[in-house]
Amino acid sequence: MQKQVNLVYITIVGSGNVARRLCHAFRNARIPINQILSSSTTGKKLAEDFNSQIISSPNEITDGSIVLLCIKDDSLKKSYLEKFKGNYLLCHTAGSVSIEVFGDRKKAGIFYPLQTLSADREIDFANIPICLEANNLKDLSILKILAKNISKDVRVINSEQRLQIHLAAVFVSNFANHLYKIAEDILKEKDISFDILKPLIKESARKIQILSPEKAQTGPALRKDKNVISKHLKLLDKHKEFQKIYKIISNSIIETYKA
Amino acid sequence: MQKQVNLVYITIVGSGNVARRLCHAFRNARIPINQILSSSTTGKKLAEDFNSQIISSPNEITDGSIVLLCIKDDSLKKSYLEKFKGNYLLCHTAGSVSIEVFGDRKKAGIFYPLQTLSADREIDFANIPICLEANNLKDLSILKILAKNISKDVRVINSEQRLQIHLAAVFVSNFANHLYKIAEDILKEKDISFDILKPLIKESARKIQILSPEKAQTGPALRKDKNVISKHLKLLDKHKEFQKIYKIISNSIIETYKA
Repeated sequence: MQKQVNLVYITIVGSGNVARRLCHAFRNARIPINQILSSSTTGKKLAEDFNSQIISSPNEITDGSIVLLCIKDDSLKKSYLEKFKGNYLLCHTAGSVSIEVFGDRKKAGIFYPLQTLSADREIDFANIPICLEANNLKDLSILKILAKNISKDVRVINSEQRLQIHLAAVFVSNFANHLYKIAEDILKEKDISFDILKPLIKESARKIQILSPEKAQTGPALRKDKNVISKHLKLLDKHKEFQKIYKIISNSIIETYKA
Repeated sequence: MQKQVNLVYITIVGSGNVARRLCHAFRNARIPINQILSSSTTGKKLAEDFNSQIISSPNEITDGSIVLLCIKDDSLKKSYLEKFKGNYLLCHTAGSVSIEVFGDRKKAGIFYPLQTLSADREIDFANIPICLEANNLKDLSILKILAKNISKDVRVINSEQRLQIHLAAVFVSNFANHLYKIAEDILKEKDISFDILKPLIKESARKIQILSPEKAQTGPALRKDKNVISKHLKLLDKHKEFQKIYKIISNSIIETYKA
């Protein structure tokens, strides 16, 4: 990791999971959070927890700061961003929003940590890829120094690539988690605790750290075991939605490995 | 873990991933593999690796053994099982096959390790749930002693529950792994290495060890962020199959959390 950024002022906009997790990561790297811009009570709590000034308007942001917008992707609209007029480096943290959203603002960039961040769960940022982009090389190098203070994996990624990464991330994280939810519902039906699946879930994710997804694939669809597949589909007769998901993914596996 | 099973003879039938991984687990618990029944070259290799007698017919199985059938679920048919006539405890290791497949055989049972087992990957059995079933209490207790030698998590599970568990396991392991494959394909298109997703995959599986799937859910579908969803769907225009999977899982997430 790089040495600490000197004399940098950080302003966090928002108070959700991403805001809180970034505050933790910066604090662990001994980088103070100067200001928190939020009007909610969680924002006030965040400012208290991190010894920051709570502000309620973009006009109060200290000039020269790095401003990290930790708000919903959906809220990142031109009309909203135009309120940020000061002389600071304005960055959003969203996977799906192009740098073009900043229009002709000169000091603008992206600071996107590729991770699933829950408010309830502490996380070590050291291995989280941080994807950076900026409207000019000087600001890009400022973001690099900042990012390297909290992560060993800092990458320059353009908006087009970032959206593609974000899409892939939805598959491996949000969608995989929904499969866990479906499995939990399936087990509940026979009064079996979800706990029984935890070692399997852990190992399935661990094994992909070493094997390619192709090498790691196992199961009835890979073996084209129609007998097992039809037993499973019968069990899902009461859950038409789960049954559809089962069919479509099994068919996709069969197609992928049809040789 | 319990003390070693005394004077137990183990015969492994088959030489695939499950056979090899079980041989390793027993060896780590200092339980020798007496015989391997297989006609393939991988079977011969397995017998060499584990210092076992290679046999080619069920008639050669030592009486009094515990016989673990590590063969494809599909091959577990009455016509095949009828070849096993000797006085030994005959068990299969399949999630999806009922104990009824053994017909009126008295010494029969199930020894089902709930895990994804790849030939290339060593695995620690200590935390793997082993689901047991037997046609009589005496054999059930023999299987319990054997299983407790290799795992801390030994459970008695009937055939109906086991099939349900197997179905849930397909969702969290085989299907989740296919989502990793899809993500890899999506990234390849923009020349981005799959490596970037590995910390996210690890964390998504880790977090479920502590949080419920509901608490752990994040992403655009949960936030009902139509703007992001439609950007993603547009990116998938060339991959109609992935697009279908994206739509169906996103809708299922939206339905689950609509409250």
